[in-house]
Amino acid sequence: MDRRSALNLQTQIFEQIRGMILTGRLRSGQRLPSSRHLCQQLRVSRITITLAFARLADEGYVETAKSLGTYVSRQIPEQALHALQVDPEPNAVPVALDHFRPDLLKIRSHNLVDAKQHRSLIDFWVGRPDARSFPLRTWARLMTKRLLSAGTALTEYRDPTGLIELRQAIADHLRPARGINVDPEQIIITGGCQEALNLVCRMLLPSGADAIVESPGYAGASYLFESFGARIHAIEVDERGLDVARLPDVTRALAYVTPSHQYPMGYTLPLDRRLELLAWAVKTNSYIVEDDYDSDFRYVGSPLAALKALDRANRVFYVGTFSKCLGAGLRIGYVVVPPSLLPAARHYKTLMNNGQPWLEQAVLADFMHTGSYARHLRIIRQHYLGKRDALLKALHSHFGHGAAIGADAGMHLVWRIPKHFPAASTVVSKALEYGVGVYDLSARAAVSPAKTAYAERHLMFGYSSLTEKQITAGVERLAAALAEPATKDKRPESAMLS
Amino acid sequence: MDRRSALNLQTQIFEQIRGMILTGRLRSGQRLPSSRHLCQQLRVSRITITLAFARLADEGYVETAKSLGTYVSRQIPEQALHALQVDPEPNAVPVALDHFRPDLLKIRSHNLVDAKQHRSLIDFWVGRPDARSFPLRTWARLMTKRLLSAGTALTEYRDPTGLIELRQAIADHLRPARGINVDPEQIIITGGCQEALNLVCRMLLPSGADAIVESPGYAGASYLFESFGARIHAIEVDERGLDVARLPDVTRALAYVTPSHQYPMGYTLPLDRRLELLAWAVKTNSYIVEDDYDSDFRYVGSPLAALKALDRANRVFYVGTFSKCLGAGLRIGYVVVPPSLLPAARHYKTLMNNGQPWLEQAVLADFMHTGSYARHLRIIRQHYLGKRDALLKALHSHFGHGAAIGADAGMHLVWRIPKHFPAASTVVSKALEYGVGVYDLSARAAVSPAKTAYAERHLMFGYSSLTEKQITAGVERLAAALAEPATKDKRPESAMLS
Repeated sequence: MDRRSALNLQTQIFEQIRGMILTGRLRSGQRLPSSRHLCQQLRVSRITITLAFARLADEGYVETAKSLGTYVSRQIPEQALHALQVDPEPNAVPVALDHFRPDLLKIRSHNLVDAKQHRSLIDFWVGRPDARSFPLRTWARLMTKRLLSAGTALTEYRDPTGLIELRQAIADHLRPARGINVDPEQIIITGGCQEALNLVCRMLLPSGADAIVESPGYAGASYLFESFGARIHAIEVDERGLDVARLPDVTRALAYVTPSHQYPMGYTLPLDRRLELLAWAVKTNSYIVEDDYDSDFRYVGSPLAALKALDRANRVFYVGTFSKCLGAGLRIGYVVVPPSLLPAARHYKTLMNNGQPWLEQAVLADFMHTGSYARHLRIIRQHYLGKRDALLKALHSHFGHGAAIGADAGMHLVWRIPKHFPAASTVVSKALEYGVGVYDLSARAAVSPAKTAYAERHLMFGYSSLTEKQITAGVERLAAALAEPATKDKRPESAMLS
Repeated sequence: MDRRSALNLQTQIFEQIRGMILTGRLRSGQRLPSSRHLCQQLRVSRITITLAFARLADEGYVETAKSLGTYVSRQIPEQALHALQVDPEPNAVPVALDHFRPDLLKIRSHNLVDAKQHRSLIDFWVGRPDARSFPLRTWARLMTKRLLSAGTALTEYRDPTGLIELRQAIADHLRPARGINVDPEQIIITGGCQEALNLVCRMLLPSGADAIVESPGYAGASYLFESFGARIHAIEVDERGLDVARLPDVTRALAYVTPSHQYPMGYTLPLDRRLELLAWAVKTNSYIVEDDYDSDFRYVGSPLAALKALDRANRVFYVGTFSKCLGAGLRIGYVVVPPSLLPAARHYKTLMNNGQPWLEQAVLADFMHTGSYARHLRIIRQHYLGKRDALLKALHSHFGHGAAIGADAGMHLVWRIPKHFPAASTVVSKALEYGVGVYDLSARAAVSPAKTAYAERHLMFGYSSLTEKQITAGVERLAAALAEPATKDKRPESAMLS
């Protein structure tokens, strides 16, 4: 007995006797010592033993008969016990999975969190809203109000497709902001855009189906399609976005695209390619997922309408998220579903998780309906523009003009590394030595083998979560890192070239 | 122009011209009327037209040349436009889906919300916690505190497997309450138990695999397995729970079980069957999902340890939820994953939705760590016991003893309809006429064809959300409904019997 254990003595006695039965040290029908004997031996009270025995009896481990006292239950199937002793190396990962489903070993997912985080780092990690801009006080006020009048909303199941007030608010936002005209019933609230992609895959991507992704492109989509056993076609991106001329000659495929601000390159898909893409979907009986992840931020020209706004053939799922304009911690996104697929989509959302948490949805709906959301967007758009300008200015002054890509919109830009500097992976580690986090494309995106050389000449700079001061200092540090004379690490490379 | 429209005039002009281009009424290269001409014709200001034209140019619909004025862009691919005119009946559900994936038409999901709700109804709908017992003030206090010190928690991505404080709190709860000894790292926070099931299916249920469910059993599991294309084996339940002797001779299967309080029948799986079930999993290289949905409520005897507590071969996923003891609106559940499958499970959770919302997790962690959760459980266990007793007493006094099943635990019981009363479906509609909602098994559970006759002799009574007064009144109304002489509806039945 361990008298210092957090478990009470009764539980300890119960667990020890149970263990002896399950490991075969006490056999079916065998008599236990009397409770009087045990309480003397273990120096515990008689009631402790009696309660432990009662629990053993309750759970079916022992039985009691007047003539026999307490004995191990004869109902315990010895053969089953024997089978359980043979433990098939449960902790040996490859063995267990090899036997069960070997492809599980190949599963991979996208990086969400930067593992390199440390305090002094000026970190250009991508896709982070500015925490200082989150409307905390308004949010707390709306939340308390909703919470205290929750009624049954917290305790009971609701429509799994989402709170209708929020879906209405999103529909009201999409018309003027993105040119999309939808019925709120077509909108399903999801756990971010990632879950929206899952919903579409569950419906339209049986194992072996064809999936089209951009390269470089969003890893969370590629790896997801991979996990569904899809045949992946990675289509190259040029300075006009996805090269639609390379779309494969397939049927019933699913194409994932980011037309507004291609991830990660930041290009905008022009009208002719949009129309070609839609025509391809009709021709091949395919569907398109348009991920409009950061379309709220456009700094040059008017915001382009979404691809979905052109979708008269109902071939486009439009996916949006509040992770970029509010915060990823809310886990709220949505998908606009073509009408013919709506009944199936509702079933799948129910099967997937019975819907999203109520309170976050209710507060977001209020935040949108009261106009706070529009105001919030105006404010952060202004903030992010200032940050972007600071970054462009710093890059220009240290490295010259013309190397920034995709800076007209979004929360990050891509920088083409000037020719006289080393490759992306080297720049990344040099920068880290100087306390700056910059990222090559493969750290935040999926890159097909054909694009590897290309990826080695580009870096990603997320600027939305940093102050203008940090941005300026960060680029300064990067310049210092790159100005350093060649280190030992570089020598083998030069040697190979000579 | 519609001057009352919410869209401004500029947007209306933009959309009309765009529509004319996309439908081919304005052809590639065709000149638009001059802005001067248009502003006179439409009686809008020149700047409105200029801005609409600028947006058309921005989006690539028109181009401007000094000599030609504004004309429809020559970049617009006429063939693509033509393809898009051929709308493949987008709203005709069967056609679109037949072409794409015909099995989508067969997708079904479980009922979450009782459609029959109306004010005067005394509704014994199943699985609803009492909203009056939700710890609103404590929750609001903890929430505000967490929110105002959120830092980057609301804006950034976190560990997709969940907040470690909450996983620790759950591990601390599971040891004494359920006899399960786990590392918090083995716990993944999910969107209720339904999402936990999805996580397991994504890993271990490829299309065509064998899935074992209980019959009658939880529909959310059966329909989910169906949606993954599994071969369903519905194993009958008797008064000792799942009949393990009927487990099929398969390999690499997934078995879904509710050993603590079988859903919906409420039976407890005894020790010998638990051991046989585990031995079967080892022998067939299968995995088991133990859904312990309402184990917090046990009114008779000590709470039995979970099946997972016996699982030395690491064959059991243990699934828990806060939907029953706190509320379904929180959408928080969790799954304890066998160590060898943990790396794959982390990847899948990331791919599925990047994790759960932060705030709910943080507040629940605080609620558990401060002891409020244990106190809350003690209180509602007492409340629900009172409600259960009121229901048993009312049923006994109106209909006699011995017909209640599974009342030792949980939030509902099953009532065996006495022989002289009509079948469940008839009782349900009679009761509804008297303002009482009672449910046959198929309304809240999946019933295999072999069990249909059985299901017709049983009703489900959820009692947790009603007051004792409502419960007493509800059974009284039911008695009145059943005492009514045979109505017209019954005559054809009697006629057929004679």
